Amino acid sequence: MTATDAECMGLALQQARQALLAGEVPIGACLVHGERRIVARNTVLSGSDPTGHAEIVAIRRASTELNATRLDGARLYVTVEPCLMCAAATHYAGIAEVHYGASLADLQELTGDELSAEPLPVGPRLRGGLQRDASLALLRAWSERRALR
Amino acid sequence: MTATDAECMGLALQQARQALLAGEVPIGACLVHGERRIVARNTVLSGSDPTGHAEIVAIRRASTELNATRLDGARLYVTVEPCLMCAAATHYAGIAEVHYGASLADLQELTGDELSAEPLPVGPRLRGGLQRDASLALLRAWSERRALR
Repeated sequence: MTATDAECMGLALQQARQALLAGEVPIGACLVHGERRIVARNTVLSGSDPTGHAEIVAIRRASTELNATRLDGARLYVTVEPCLMCAAATHYAGIAEVHYGASLADLQELTGDELSAEPLPVGPRLRGGLQRDASLALLRAWSERRALR
Repeated sequence: MTATDAECMGLALQQARQALLAGEVPIGACLVHGERRIVARNTVLSGSDPTGHAEIVAIRRASTELNATRLDGARLYVTVEPCLMCAAATHYAGIAEVHYGASLADLQELTGDELSAEPLPVGPRLRGGLQRDASLALLRAWSERRALR
C-alpha cells in the first residue's frame, strides 16, 4: 500500500463515516484524476436516488467538474467493492484502476443484496482488501443500528 | 402491444429523436409510475456524464420528483435494451417491468460496446422488440452521421 493509496482510502473512509452519521449505507469514495481528488459518499436515502452509490456520485461529480464525458486514467478508491451498476459505470467513465476495501461478499452477508459479484469482462483493474477492516467496521455498525430499529 | 405500451414507447422515441438532434446517442425512456409519466433521454455528452444513460436519467428524475428511494411497481419503456449499469439500476429502483425496442446486440453492432448483454439473475421482467424498427432507424442515422465526421 503506497502513501497515496492509504491517503486516498482514508478520504473515502472519512466519507463513509459521514454517510453513517447521516443514516446512509456507510460507503465512501475518492476519485483521483491528475492532481485532483474528488470525494463522494452514498446518497441513496438523503438524495432520494436509487443510483446514488458513492462511485456513481464521485464519477458524476468529477465529470461535471472536469466538464468531461470520460475520466481516462483515473483511479477510484472506494470502501466497498463496486456493485454491477458501479462497475459498469467505471468502465464507461474510462477509469483505469479501482481500489476497494471490503468485498461485495462482505456486504452481501450484511445486506442480502442478491446482485452477482462476478467481475465484468471489461473495465478497470480491480484491487481489493485495502483497509478492509475499517470499512467492515462501518458496515457492521450500520447493520447493527438497522437491526435495532 | 396495448395502447399504453405504444403511447409510452412513442414518448420514449420522441426523446430519442431529440437526443439525435442534440448530437447524443439517440436513446430515450419513459417511466410510468401510477398516473405519472416521466421522460428522459441520453445526456452523456450534453451533460458531461458517463452515467447519463436515458434509464438512469429517468430513474433519478422520477425518484427526485416523487421524493422516493424506490419506484416499486413502475414500468420503464426504453428505446434500447438496458446495459448492465442500467439493468442493475432498474433492480435497485424496484422497477417491475422494462419494455424495450432495439436489443443490446443491435446497439453493439453499431457501437462496438463490449459490455455483456447477459440478463441479470434479479430485477424487472424484460420484454423486447417494442417498436424496434423505429428505434433502430434512429441508431442507424446516428451511426451514419458519426461515420461522416
